[in-house]
Amino acid sequence: MTAAVSLDLSASAAQLTAQLVDTESVSGNEAALADAVEAALRGYERLSVQRDGNVVIARTELGRPMRVVLAGHLDTVPIAGNLPSRVAGDRLYGCGTSDMKAGLALQLRAAALVGEGRVDPAADLTWFFYDCEEVEASRNGLNRVAASSPELLSADLAILLEPTNGRVEGGCQGTIRAVITVTGRRAHSARSWLGDNAIHGAAPVLELLAGYSAAEVEVEGLTYREGLNAVYIGGGVAGNVIPDSCTITVNYRFAPDKSEADAEAHLRAVFAGFVLEVVDSAPAARPGLDQPLAQSFVAALGQPAEAKLGWTDVARFSALGIPALNFGPGDPNLAHTVDEWVSLRAIESAEVALLAFLSSGA
Amino acid sequence: MTAAVSLDLSASAAQLTAQLVDTESVSGNEAALADAVEAALRGYERLSVQRDGNVVIARTELGRPMRVVLAGHLDTVPIAGNLPSRVAGDRLYGCGTSDMKAGLALQLRAAALVGEGRVDPAADLTWFFYDCEEVEASRNGLNRVAASSPELLSADLAILLEPTNGRVEGGCQGTIRAVITVTGRRAHSARSWLGDNAIHGAAPVLELLAGYSAAEVEVEGLTYREGLNAVYIGGGVAGNVIPDSCTITVNYRFAPDKSEADAEAHLRAVFAGFVLEVVDSAPAARPGLDQPLAQSFVAALGQPAEAKLGWTDVARFSALGIPALNFGPGDPNLAHTVDEWVSLRAIESAEVALLAFLSSGA
Repeated sequence: MTAAVSLDLSASAAQLTAQLVDTESVSGNEAALADAVEAALRGYERLSVQRDGNVVIARTELGRPMRVVLAGHLDTVPIAGNLPSRVAGDRLYGCGTSDMKAGLALQLRAAALVGEGRVDPAADLTWFFYDCEEVEASRNGLNRVAASSPELLSADLAILLEPTNGRVEGGCQGTIRAVITVTGRRAHSARSWLGDNAIHGAAPVLELLAGYSAAEVEVEGLTYREGLNAVYIGGGVAGNVIPDSCTITVNYRFAPDKSEADAEAHLRAVFAGFVLEVVDSAPAARPGLDQPLAQSFVAALGQPAEAKLGWTDVARFSALGIPALNFGPGDPNLAHTVDEWVSLRAIESAEVALLAFLSSGA
Repeated sequence: MTAAVSLDLSASAAQLTAQLVDTESVSGNEAALADAVEAALRGYERLSVQRDGNVVIARTELGRPMRVVLAGHLDTVPIAGNLPSRVAGDRLYGCGTSDMKAGLALQLRAAALVGEGRVDPAADLTWFFYDCEEVEASRNGLNRVAASSPELLSADLAILLEPTNGRVEGGCQGTIRAVITVTGRRAHSARSWLGDNAIHGAAPVLELLAGYSAAEVEVEGLTYREGLNAVYIGGGVAGNVIPDSCTITVNYRFAPDKSEADAEAHLRAVFAGFVLEVVDSAPAARPGLDQPLAQSFVAALGQPAEAKLGWTDVARFSALGIPALNFGPGDPNLAHTVDEWVSLRAIESAEVALLAFLSSGA
C-alpha cells in the first residue's frame, strides 16, 4: 500500500506542476492522483465535489448567468526514465510536464482561489479531472461521463487545458484511420513468377502517400493544416514465400469543414481502386469563436487564436453543442517526448491570463 | 511412449511412400522415422549403417571404381490437416508426398534391392537420410555431417531425391536475403510536417522491386530464371505517430554464374542509395553436367536436364567439389501446399529409371 499523496494548492502553479508530475499517473494508474485531487478540492466549502471512478468533478453554484468548464486529463503516456521531475533554468523536465500537468496545476490553482473566495468568478465554474485520455477512446473518463451524465458537461464554454503554448487554439482536427489491403498470390520465392507479390503491389499506395499534398483549410478565420500518412505497414509470410497480403494503415487528420463521412469519402477517392476499410474515426470540432464568451477569452489573452492541429477532447464538448477551446501553458510539440518539459514562466503567464478571464472577462 | 514404426521395404515404392507419409516427421520431430529407417536398413548385411543424431547413413563397400550418393531429407513442413495420406485415382495426397517422401521411398527401395542382392550396382552407393532440411541451415543434418565428417559425403556423383517431376534438374539457384532500412523522423500524426515518414520513404524501394526485370541466365546449357522479391515489410510505431523506420526484406534468387559476393553486389547496385544489410545467403551450385556419370544418368532418363529453380542441398555437395543433381518423382510446385500430392505412376517410373542407372549406367 502506498501512502496517500497530499497536494499543496497554496504552492505556486509551477511548484504544483512539479508535485503533480511526481505523482506518476500513467493511463490506468490514475487512482492515487485522483484521490489527491479529490481530497484537496473537498477542503473548500464553496465547491461541490463528485467522484466517479477516476473522474473528479467540482462545481460552484453561485447563480451566475453563465458557466465555464475547465477540463484536463490526469493521465500521461508511459514513463520513459523521465521521472522524477527536475528543474533546469526556466524548464521543468519530466513525463507529463507539458501534456498536461501544467494545465492541471492551473485548474487546481483556480479551484483553490475560487474555493478560498480570493477570486470571485464572473461565471459559475465546473472542473473536470479525468482519466485515460492517452489511450483508446472507450476508456476515456470524460467520454464515459459525457455518455452517462451529459448534464454534468453542460456549459456556455469549455476550456481544455491541453498544451497550446499559452495561446487559444480553437476546435480541433478530426482523425480517421483506414487499412488498405493489397492482395496477391503466394508462391515459393525461387519460382516467384508463379506468384503475385502483394508487397510490390503496395508500391502505388506508397507513391500516392509520398506525393500527397495536404490541404490547408480556413474555418472561422483559423487555418487547419491537414495530413495524410501511413502509420503502419506490414506484410510477409516467410523468408522464401512470395507474400499474398500487404496492409497499410493510414491516418488522415482533417479540418473541421469536413464530417467523418466527408473524410472517408476523401480517402476512398485518393485510394480509388484499392480495398480500404475504415477502422477508427473521431469528428473534428469547429473553433466556436463566434461565441461571445470565447471572444472574450481571446481578447483577455491579447493574442489571436489559432487552429488546434491535433484531436483533443474539445470534440466531446463540441458534440454536445458546447463551444470549446484549447488553452494550456505546455508545448504540444513536446508532448509524448522523452525530453518533455514546460517553461515555468509560461505556467505563470497562463495562470495570470486564466484568472483575469475568470474574474472579469467571463 | 509411441510404438516403434516398422517399415515394409518389400512393398511397392508407392505403398512405401504412403507408409513414410503416415509417419509424421515435421522438422525437429524426425526421431521415429529415423529409427524406422535405421531399423529397416540394419536388416541387410551388405549395407553398413551409421546413425548420427537423426541422420542415418548406409554404405556399400563393393570395391567399385566409383561411388554415387542417394540423399534425401526425412522432415516435412508442418502438418496442415493433410494427414493421414489418402489415395484418389493416381494421386497420393498428404503432407510430404512430393517433398520428399516419394524420394525417400526410392532411396529405401534401392537400398532393399541392393541389400538383398537383387540389384548389382555398377558403383558403390551411399545413402543419406537426414533431418531439418525445412528449417534454418544451422539445424540441417546433412550440413552438420558435411562439417564434422565431410569424408562421408565423398562420391563421384550425388543424387538428391528432391521433387523434380522425374526430370534431372542440375545444380541450383543461390539465395541471398537482405534488409533495406528506410529511416525518418517521428512526429505526432496531427502535425505530420514536423516529421519524415519512413513508410512513404519506402515507396521508391517498392517501385524498384515492382519494376525489376529478372534475368534468365544460361549455365552449362541450362537456363536459370532469377527473381528478386520483397518477402517482408514492416514499419509503424503507433496509430498517431509518423513512423521513423520501415524495413523491407528482399530475397534474390540467383543463377550459378554468380557467387554470393556477386549477388550482394547486384543488390547493392539495384538499391543504390539505400541502407542494405545482408542477413542470409547460400551459394548457387553449377549443374555439373560436364561429368560423365551425370551425363550417363541424364542419358538413362532419356530426357534433357533442366535447371533447378530453387535452393537445395545439392549446393552442400557442390561446395565439396562433388557434382550433384536433383531427381525425384514429386512436383516441386506442390511442395509446402496444403493439397500436396504425388502421382503414383510417377513414383513407379522414377524408380525404374533410378534402378536402371544404378545397375548399368553408373
